[in-house]
Amino acid sequence: MSEHAITGDEEQSTGPLAPYQVYELGDVVLQSGQTLRDAKLAYQTYGTLNPEKTNAIVYPTWYSGRHWENEWLIGPGRGLDPEKYFIIVPNMLGNGLSSSPSNTLAPANQARFPNVTMFDNVAYQHQLVTKHFGITSLELVVGWSMGAGQTYQWAVSYPDMVKRILPFCGSSRTSAHNRVFLEGVKAALTADAAWGNGWYTDQPQLGLRAAARVYAGWGFSQAFYWNELWREMGYSSLEDFLVGFWEGFFLDGRDANNLLTMLWTWQHADVGLTPGMDGDTMKALKSIKAKGVVMPGHKDLYFPPEDEAWAVKHMANAELREIPGVWGHFAGGGVNESDIEFIDKAVKELLVSPAD
Amino acid sequence: MSEHAITGDEEQSTGPLAPYQVYELGDVVLQSGQTLRDAKLAYQTYGTLNPEKTNAIVYPTWYSGRHWENEWLIGPGRGLDPEKYFIIVPNMLGNGLSSSPSNTLAPANQARFPNVTMFDNVAYQHQLVTKHFGITSLELVVGWSMGAGQTYQWAVSYPDMVKRILPFCGSSRTSAHNRVFLEGVKAALTADAAWGNGWYTDQPQLGLRAAARVYAGWGFSQAFYWNELWREMGYSSLEDFLVGFWEGFFLDGRDANNLLTMLWTWQHADVGLTPGMDGDTMKALKSIKAKGVVMPGHKDLYFPPEDEAWAVKHMANAELREIPGVWGHFAGGGVNESDIEFIDKAVKELLVSPAD
Repeated sequence: MSEHAITGDEEQSTGPLAPYQVYELGDVVLQSGQTLRDAKLAYQTYGTLNPEKTNAIVYPTWYSGRHWENEWLIGPGRGLDPEKYFIIVPNMLGNGLSSSPSNTLAPANQARFPNVTMFDNVAYQHQLVTKHFGITSLELVVGWSMGAGQTYQWAVSYPDMVKRILPFCGSSRTSAHNRVFLEGVKAALTADAAWGNGWYTDQPQLGLRAAARVYAGWGFSQAFYWNELWREMGYSSLEDFLVGFWEGFFLDGRDANNLLTMLWTWQHADVGLTPGMDGDTMKALKSIKAKGVVMPGHKDLYFPPEDEAWAVKHMANAELREIPGVWGHFAGGGVNESDIEFIDKAVKELLVSPAD
Repeated sequence: MSEHAITGDEEQSTGPLAPYQVYELGDVVLQSGQTLRDAKLAYQTYGTLNPEKTNAIVYPTWYSGRHWENEWLIGPGRGLDPEKYFIIVPNMLGNGLSSSPSNTLAPANQARFPNVTMFDNVAYQHQLVTKHFGITSLELVVGWSMGAGQTYQWAVSYPDMVKRILPFCGSSRTSAHNRVFLEGVKAALTADAAWGNGWYTDQPQLGLRAAARVYAGWGFSQAFYWNELWREMGYSSLEDFLVGFWEGFFLDGRDANNLLTMLWTWQHADVGLTPGMDGDTMKALKSIKAKGVVMPGHKDLYFPPEDEAWAVKHMANAELREIPGVWGHFAGGGVNESDIEFIDKAVKELLVSPAD
């Protein structure tokens, strides 16, 4: 394990400038059969693990997200209160901090970075939690979007370890429509000749910006755009939002191959692919022992509420609680106060409720 | 006016091989101020104009559609019955049959083809209907998607001429979200270097296929994909549908610049931009005298029913009638029997109802 500080400023404890930790996984054999050598899991922690090791929470990142981009839900007085809980935010493989196409040495770099599954991601997070921290029980696993997918995966992979789950704006299995939406993002990015099948030296600007523009229509709802709610986010026109927020989002330290690696993980996410589940998503959902609050966004266009209603139907102890409003998928993105409050309230309620 | 037969087979009266007509508009000044020289309006007719010229219907095409792709709603026993009505299907400017980047002579060809508005399109259709056919009153204007937009435009541009309108899966003004969706399609197409800012000699295959894949997630609903309803359309797998239907759709005689021309028309569609309407969509909607049945698709992702509910609220004599089911935008695409029946029933009811 090593400590990484992006700047020398040791005062920072949150944000992109705060030092973060890297857990050395060594050589790991992925679900695909490929070996990822010298694999690394970057993570950040908030709060203190109590001596009994009974106050731990795992809160994985999402598509392209980094640990500091989860921090909006963490804080004193919040459900994820670092004064009460020890909150671990592991960075997803491919996000540029954990092992990724952009930071892996040849020959497994760039276009040759292997495919990674949700199961793989969670298996390595489990190693960190158990082997490094010696934690045997988690109070909660919680996450947005692909973080919600990892949340489900935790509950299926380690049913006796996870007491509660709160997946928001995500799913236990990537639906066919969601896969098609991602095909569009991928097609736009890879249509740029500068991408060069992954062997670029400079980022494929046009492809990243095209992918961003494709994503823009999906990330927020029709009503969000009708009501020009991007104004609340500080943008002055629709084009200003497309460039400033969306293109900015895809350029902010992101890497094309990293995005494609995570996209593959997303397209192939399915708790039914957990060993022992026979490819059966319903069987996997039924195996979950954790108490769940499942929170789709009312107008989420690629993780629609009906899909999560289906999942809850197959879970022994889960409640469906839709996030109201028109922010669509980004209801879970921490970009508006009322959705943040709604999610935080659910986290608080779930954490104080008995787990069985 | 001239008659075009794609083959010498004069027996055909429908389909892509049937001869169709071209109305010579001459040099026309577009709303943008640009002159489109030797402008041509291709069209097809079905049935016979009665001596009183009181049985005419206009049924414009949609984004990339050609007149023969409207024929599924026309036929003996249907509402659009050629034994009763004289049905004119004008091809939209930019669709490859009417004046388009692909068929206009230099210097106004390819990337230099001027921007065309919905108002322009309908103004030239009006010339055909009035000057060529001598028709002064239309029983109905009806259309799908951008055809619905032209339907609204007819009712606003020529309020005393249009008795009834039936716009389905479309809108009177392209919403902001819809414009963003189209930005994604455009970005994907133009990310392909082979597009060359419109100066290609061969079609940009990768860009067209990327645009098709972006479109795929939007054209049908989440539930359509969940239920694998592409099987009903004859496809054997999701990838088979993406290649066979979607990529096939974007390659079937389509042209990249044509698609971009129509996309511009679509993004800028707004009946409020009709001269005299002061940019005020509501004022334009209020000016409509036609009796309307407005039919959004229940799960249409880019023309959602709530937008059409808004439009109907501002129209003097219109009913909102949602097309149920999960086929999304393609509820209006003539690809499944129950939606076809639902729309046809509405056409029949509207045609026999008094227009005021």
